[in-house]
Amino acid sequence: MFFEGSEKKIEVNVHPESSLCLRELKKDYWHKLVKESGASILSVISNNYCDAYILSESSLFVWDKRFLMITCGKTTLVDAFVAFIEEFGKEKLPSLIYQRKNEYYSFLQKSDFYSDVEKYKKYLPGVSHRFGYLDRHHTNIFHSNNEFDGAQDDFTTELLMYHINDRATAVFSKENQEKNVIRDFLGIDQRLSGFQIDDFAFDPLGYSLNGIKDKNYFTIHVTPEEDSSYVSFETNCDLSSQHPRLLENILDLFQPESFDFLTFNSNQQLVLDDSGYHLVGNYKDDLDCGYQVRFFEYIKEQSDFRKSIRL
Amino acid sequence: MFFEGSEKKIEVNVHPESSLCLRELKKDYWHKLVKESGASILSVISNNYCDAYILSESSLFVWDKRFLMITCGKTTLVDAFVAFIEEFGKEKLPSLIYQRKNEYYSFLQKSDFYSDVEKYKKYLPGVSHRFGYLDRHHTNIFHSNNEFDGAQDDFTTELLMYHINDRATAVFSKENQEKNVIRDFLGIDQRLSGFQIDDFAFDPLGYSLNGIKDKNYFTIHVTPEEDSSYVSFETNCDLSSQHPRLLENILDLFQPESFDFLTFNSNQQLVLDDSGYHLVGNYKDDLDCGYQVRFFEYIKEQSDFRKSIRL
Repeated sequence: MFFEGSEKKIEVNVHPESSLCLRELKKDYWHKLVKESGASILSVISNNYCDAYILSESSLFVWDKRFLMITCGKTTLVDAFVAFIEEFGKEKLPSLIYQRKNEYYSFLQKSDFYSDVEKYKKYLPGVSHRFGYLDRHHTNIFHSNNEFDGAQDDFTTELLMYHINDRATAVFSKENQEKNVIRDFLGIDQRLSGFQIDDFAFDPLGYSLNGIKDKNYFTIHVTPEEDSSYVSFETNCDLSSQHPRLLENILDLFQPESFDFLTFNSNQQLVLDDSGYHLVGNYKDDLDCGYQVRFFEYIKEQSDFRKSIRL
Repeated sequence: MFFEGSEKKIEVNVHPESSLCLRELKKDYWHKLVKESGASILSVISNNYCDAYILSESSLFVWDKRFLMITCGKTTLVDAFVAFIEEFGKEKLPSLIYQRKNEYYSFLQKSDFYSDVEKYKKYLPGVSHRFGYLDRHHTNIFHSNNEFDGAQDDFTTELLMYHINDRATAVFSKENQEKNVIRDFLGIDQRLSGFQIDDFAFDPLGYSLNGIKDKNYFTIHVTPEEDSSYVSFETNCDLSSQHPRLLENILDLFQPESFDFLTFNSNQQLVLDDSGYHLVGNYKDDLDCGYQVRFFEYIKEQSDFRKSIRL
């Protein structure tokens, strides 16, 4: 019972002056593109600004001049990018940013970050960074050298949780669990009112949710497998003004043993008084592509003896 | 500049009533056996009880009725065991215990713990345990089901350190560093007097040391590569009575960002007051093969912002 929830993510910005409008591409095109990564499209919701797809492995969001694709499992997201740039050419792209989280089982993956970067560099020059120590939670980032003025408005917040508590595990592990029960557990209606929601409960396990409201999105992916549980929450909302305490509420729901908190161009803070979490990783860097990235790694104290896991 | 310091370890006990005496096997035999794992023998020291070999990747200790082989890098230690049991047969072996640490880059390895265990199980039934969470420092253990009365006397202490401080890195990274300088840094003469010592400084980087005294051994392996440094210390000495504060002294020398502390059949304690280390993993289990294993994971607080690593 293992599924690799850890994600790869690509954000591609099309040149503002290019005639290419991503939302005008036919749905068939996105089906084909997603297939290149090894995933497939399961459903879609739309508003005036954005199409939000739920994938067999995570999510795809498409705006007129930008797309964001997140995939997990054993997918090779880089291959979707290669197909895209082969179709449209690099002169249409002012920026690419690729992010790859450390995996539970990197030896089961079809590629590693370094070989991915080799593929990107065949099309676009760029640089790579790692936030966090190699033997612990970390995230790798490759970005193209192209300058992109819009990056300053592009907030992103990620909350990546490992080893969720028993109560949350039970909610997501019940056979044929109803989506309404999960939405209630997550408190979507109260916490993110006004968002159009699409969600999917996987058989036997796993849950994905996309929400959109104007140009904003959020997405949640839950891998509840007991020995390798992983929950990711990501949004481009300005949380501190629009949804204060949302992240703390999510942490309280899942009570993970450890979690990573990342921000792109945001000074979002976590208030974690007396939570039992220790800050063991704390990074901030201004990337040449215009993003300020912050990466925080938190781990819970574990003072009581536990048993080993019988494999 | 990457080297995988994380180790695999096998301890094989020959049946006390068997006529097989391991130290009577010719040196050629051990050269051949070590080669099966992908490593090679570089030097040897001996006393009345033990032959201690330094390997191209770690160490081998041979007593009359027991051998302990530790290998790192991309070795496949399991293949040495397969060659051994193919030669001598399983009826000569009352016990096997195999331990494999999580790697920095598991995707560069030639095997994983699970495939190793499949190989062991072709010869000996046994069970597997994991101490620690899958996404963090952990150690996997496979042991045979055979009962072995001697396990109670078989103390082992391991101190596995990650990301050593700048001062230690400098000592081990200097080109053509003299072994005496390293021994002085380690304080071997004062801290472990009476031990016969053999050590090896690798080109361009890396250092291994074996020490033996009667039936006791200790071994130190240093991988100083900056982005993936790793230092292991292991011994079967009863430290609390013979060498109190030795582990704390070693920690103070290397001041790692994180470390794991393991004991087999020992209640050895660490005294870490105000050290800045948090206990984030704390496991104890009695394995069916007679070993009580304890695994502790410590990580330093990291309150100041750091930059990312440019890859």
